[in-house]
Amino acid sequence: MNDKLRPNLEIDNLDIDILSILMNDATTAYTEIAKELIVSGGTIHVRMKKMQDLGIIKGSNLIVDAQKVGYDICAFLGIYLEKGSIYHDAVNELKKIKEIVELHYTTGGYSMFAKIICRDTNHLRYVLNDEIQAVSGIQRTETFISLEESIKRQITLK
Amino acid sequence: MNDKLRPNLEIDNLDIDILSILMNDATTAYTEIAKELIVSGGTIHVRMKKMQDLGIIKGSNLIVDAQKVGYDICAFLGIYLEKGSIYHDAVNELKKIKEIVELHYTTGGYSMFAKIICRDTNHLRYVLNDEIQAVSGIQRTETFISLEESIKRQITLK
Amino acid sequence: MNDKLRPNLEIDNLDIDILSILMNDATTAYTEIAKELIVSGGTIHVRMKKMQDLGIIKGSNLIVDAQKVGYDICAFLGIYLEKGSIYHDAVNELKKIKEIVELHYTTGGYSMFAKIICRDTNHLRYVLNDEIQAVSGIQRTETFISLEESIKRQITLK
Amino acid sequence: MNDKLRPNLEIDNLDIDILSILMNDATTAYTEIAKELIVSGGTIHVRMKKMQDLGIIKGSNLIVDAQKVGYDICAFLGIYLEKGSIYHDAVNELKKIKEIVELHYTTGGYSMFAKIICRDTNHLRYVLNDEIQAVSGIQRTETFISLEESIKRQITLK
Amino acid sequence: MNDKLRPNLEIDNLDIDILSILMNDATTAYTEIAKELIVSGGTIHVRMKKMQDLGIIKGSNLIVDAQKVGYDICAFLGIYLEKGSIYHDAVNELKKIKEIVELHYTTGGYSMFAKIICRDTNHLRYVLNDEIQAVSGIQRTETFISLEESIKRQITLK
Amino acid sequence: MNDKLRPNLEIDNLDIDILSILMNDATTAYTEIAKELIVSGGTIHVRMKKMQDLGIIKGSNLIVDAQKVGYDICAFLGIYLEKGSIYHDAVNELKKIKEIVELHYTTGGYSMFAKIICRDTNHLRYVLNDEIQAVSGIQRTETFISLEESIKRQITLK
Amino acid sequence: MNDKLRPNLEIDNLDIDILSILMNDATTAYTEIAKELIVSGGTIHVRMKKMQDLGIIKGSNLIVDAQKVGYDICAFLGIYLEKGSIYHDAVNELKKIKEIVELHYTTGGYSMFAKIICRDTNHLRYVLNDEIQAVSGIQRTETFISLEESIKRQITLK
Amino acid sequence: MNDKLRPNLEIDNLDIDILSILMNDATTAYTEIAKELIVSGGTIHVRMKKMQDLGIIKGSNLIVDAQKVGYDICAFLGIYLEKGSIYHDAVNELKKIKEIVELHYTTGGYSMFAKIICRDTNHLRYVLNDEIQAVSGIQRTETFISLEESIKRQITLK
Repeated sequence: MNDKLRPNLEIDNLDIDILSILMNDATTAYTEIAKELIVSGGTIHVRMKKMQDLGIIKGSNLIVDAQKVGYDICAFLGIYLEKGSIYHDAVNELKKIKEIVELHYTTGGYSMFAKIICRDTNHLRYVLNDEIQAVSGIQRTETFISLEESIKRQITLK
Repeated sequence: MNDKLRPNLEIDNLDIDILSILMNDATTAYTEIAKELIVSGGTIHVRMKKMQDLGIIKGSNLIVDAQKVGYDICAFLGIYLEKGSIYHDAVNELKKIKEIVELHYTTGGYSMFAKIICRDTNHLRYVLNDEIQAVSGIQRTETFISLEESIKRQITLK
Repeated sequence: MNDKLRPNLEIDNLDIDILSILMNDATTAYTEIAKELIVSGGTIHVRMKKMQDLGIIKGSNLIVDAQKVGYDICAFLGIYLEKGSIYHDAVNELKKIKEIVELHYTTGGYSMFAKIICRDTNHLRYVLNDEIQAVSGIQRTETFISLEESIKRQITLK
Repeated sequence: MNDKLRPNLEIDNLDIDILSILMNDATTAYTEIAKELIVSGGTIHVRMKKMQDLGIIKGSNLIVDAQKVGYDICAFLGIYLEKGSIYHDAVNELKKIKEIVELHYTTGGYSMFAKIICRDTNHLRYVLNDEIQAVSGIQRTETFISLEESIKRQITLK
Repeated sequence: MNDKLRPNLEIDNLDIDILSILMNDATTAYTEIAKELIVSGGTIHVRMKKMQDLGIIKGSNLIVDAQKVGYDICAFLGIYLEKGSIYHDAVNELKKIKEIVELHYTTGGYSMFAKIICRDTNHLRYVLNDEIQAVSGIQRTETFISLEESIKRQITLK
Repeated sequence: MNDKLRPNLEIDNLDIDILSILMNDATTAYTEIAKELIVSGGTIHVRMKKMQDLGIIKGSNLIVDAQKVGYDICAFLGIYLEKGSIYHDAVNELKKIKEIVELHYTTGGYSMFAKIICRDTNHLRYVLNDEIQAVSGIQRTETFISLEESIKRQITLK
Repeated sequence: MNDKLRPNLEIDNLDIDILSILMNDATTAYTEIAKELIVSGGTIHVRMKKMQDLGIIKGSNLIVDAQKVGYDICAFLGIYLEKGSIYHDAVNELKKIKEIVELHYTTGGYSMFAKIICRDTNHLRYVLNDEIQAVSGIQRTETFISLEESIKRQITLK
Repeated sequence: MNDKLRPNLEIDNLDIDILSILMNDATTAYTEIAKELIVSGGTIHVRMKKMQDLGIIKGSNLIVDAQKVGYDICAFLGIYLEKGSIYHDAVNELKKIKEIVELHYTTGGYSMFAKIICRDTNHLRYVLNDEIQAVSGIQRTETFISLEESIKRQITLK
């Protein structure tokens, strides 16, 4: 992608190249990145430092196969609130439920949209009924269980 | 979590402890993990090797602030197919659209459920109308734009 | 229930009493039923014969705990047909899918309504996508997974 | 089905064979089953005892033609609760309504899903409006009347 | 239609013939009906008296072109109640709104279903917002305005 | 109602009074109407003639209790067409199905909206599946069965 | 359009011609209009004065490209009220939210329908969640974001 | 609004002030604007020229009371396409229907969203059924008729 398409961003194409490599493997050594991009290792350090300081890089994740560690169910949840005004309180309560791995305030019919990971259907029933529905102001939820995840990847920056 | 809750899994509590540390920071040095868990560095290597061989560990991701690299729009998409039987072909076509970062076959009203990341509303319109709708067999889509992501985290294994 | 409420039925209260006992335990011996209802064993035989001939009694079922024989998922399916006119053909195709244990032609938004029993979510995905969606004329389905069956019983005749 | 597909179950293929026979006719004599499966009658007794002790076999049902005993209407009910948190109380109240023969906690749009059997549309109106709607916390129901039951059978274990 | 199809009804084919004539024109003279059906005028009187006594005939209506007397809008209304239990009270209140010409308790998604006749869209807005919505316990309504009435007729009894 | 509210209509208050009496009982004798409204019988004749010529009066109906003549089911039908352009052809086909007593082209989600009267649920199933769904271009229908008709009356003209 | 099609309107074809010119460009000089319509400038003044007095002409708008002055998001909002009876109060509250540029009381599923203009998705989130949802009696909203405005014009009067 | 909130716009606060005056009355004389904003008339000319050249100002509209010129019905239309890929062709066809005054490509359930202005319900029926539904690829529409327009105004720029 041409720089002209990103007029207001504080990063250039070299930053993008570095990010692209690390987004696929966060453990790639800086020396290896430097070699691939034909710049000095010091440049990689400077750029990484800048992007961490700007909050562009927020950390790194180990990618674990959820099913192989006993989490078989991935589900999406449309959440209806009794009243929109209790949104902020509801978010705070939902943060305490560790099975919720994403929560969004969305346009469309739902008040909020969540992604949850559970061990099995019993666990899902417990999380839905005894944890999420117990949050004050949540009226009802609509659950979409993922039966197959056919795409899971990061955005391609270039 | 007690081992009894995971009778069929090939991992024990030490494996879980190692994963938990790396899921929060994939670049943590093995020596640091060993120190924290009071085991030898060699043990960490052995365990990591085993979990990579078993496919439990699938890689690592750099976490990048999408808005700061110019991707302002995160949206969820319910996708209706003309006929369920074209599902496999549609998945293959959708894999070519790089803005789609997740794709699920879900229960509930939609045939498929996707998560997409775009630069702005113009980009979203292009992806929806000229790329996704152009896939043969896709009848219509229902878009939920995320206006705020209030939770984004990994599952807590213990 | 008083006989007056059933003016057109060919059964009386004694028949109802016999049915009520057997609907709870199909293996109850006739002598035991006779003793409980204070009639002769021959009367039970005569009545049972009559009700079998009239098609009132259609057989008996062993009740098996589906989860304990490896069938973890019970789901309801709203089915939309491309055109109502292919209903009869679709029923014939759906009869070949043994995971479908009930199929109804219903009022309301769906063309048909089914109950299916599967081993796990992988099996459900296969049945939904490769078997049911492959039936000619089925446009899409809407799945409701049962996370808990809190009531399961026969009608109470009196 | 091969035993390998059921690694964690406490039953083998002979158990499955016995269950399969009785699921179609709960009154089949053990001697007949033994003869068909070419094992001793004692074996059948031992296996049945084991499966009853394990809770695999939960009883038996006489199958009665509901219309011929005066119950013309079979309907499915999507139930919306005012708040998810009153689910347990609502279940207890609904158990007292004998026309409800199945009740499920389901994913998807409804809070609960029920199957009911009534004598006629007047009876249905009474059960819906004066019994189910009177349960505290039930907001509204969506009714699907079965106009034809084209499939009604047990799962096929092998 | 053959009498056998109406085993429990208190009317015969002659009654049906009389009804059929009057359902199309309630002012047809009895002598004319008698002549057409080749029976005596007295027979018509006897039959009409019987059907009025049995409550089969409930009266007669002049059919007026609503638009020509200034009622341009015919609309159907799905009505949602806050709670099903207030149904009886709501019906009593709705009876006082004279623009409602039909009201039904229906299966499906709505609590009640109404047909209303109004002079124009201003009148409709008034009836919807100031009269119907003011009834205690009515949560919201969904309006379907008839843009063309292509069929309007009585049932054909034979 | 004041005449000023009906500036463009060709009828006055006396016409409205005559219509109001006959809309409640189409068989009221003209002499009786004349007496009640304190005008001459000739005036009633003149006015009736005028309103028939103007098409204001379209005929009269005998009101029959549908259930007492064997028609137990009254249902409303939302009809979805495959394409809006086949509307006129579909109307012509639907006119041939005598169980349809009203058909409207409506705003809102459905293409058309119908009212049907059937003898029982078997008859309803036949009309829905073998007659209405067989009409070319009808994609699917959504049925609302009336379980109770709490209001059924004519518009009140004054 | 012929005058016969507008029997009750107080304007004639010349008025329509004047309106048509000004609806496309409100700043057209009267002399220019007069020349184009081949009437005197005085006639234009008289007609304009009449139409302003009758309330036919309500003012004029400069048409500004919203995106170019920093308003990127145009969205439609279906609004559900807790109870229809609070409609008038809700309208008064909504008038205070300046991002709402249109508000309608509509038939169909929503209580109200609004059009809003915002600077970006953050602004939209603020308006939806902190302003509109804070209005007493608003239960929830359904948002449709316009990704492209392909038609925007005035009605054509002739 | 502070300039800092509009970092990328080519206009300043004086431009905003000029626009704000003209958005309320497009016919305001430049001298009057100059006086109100305490700048020279030449400045107003310069700024207006700049904003016209930049495409910020696109023209002006006379605001006409649609009902007073015989257009009684304002309706919103959710449009479903058979396939998303025919969107561009459908837009071109819809542009020919002059009753459509706005057309949007929207997120949410509909493919497109339109606003139409019609004379009466007959005109609406014609536009919906004979014009819009006749466009190739339009499957069905969902109509929301505005019964009252409680807000209609321009965005407030400051």
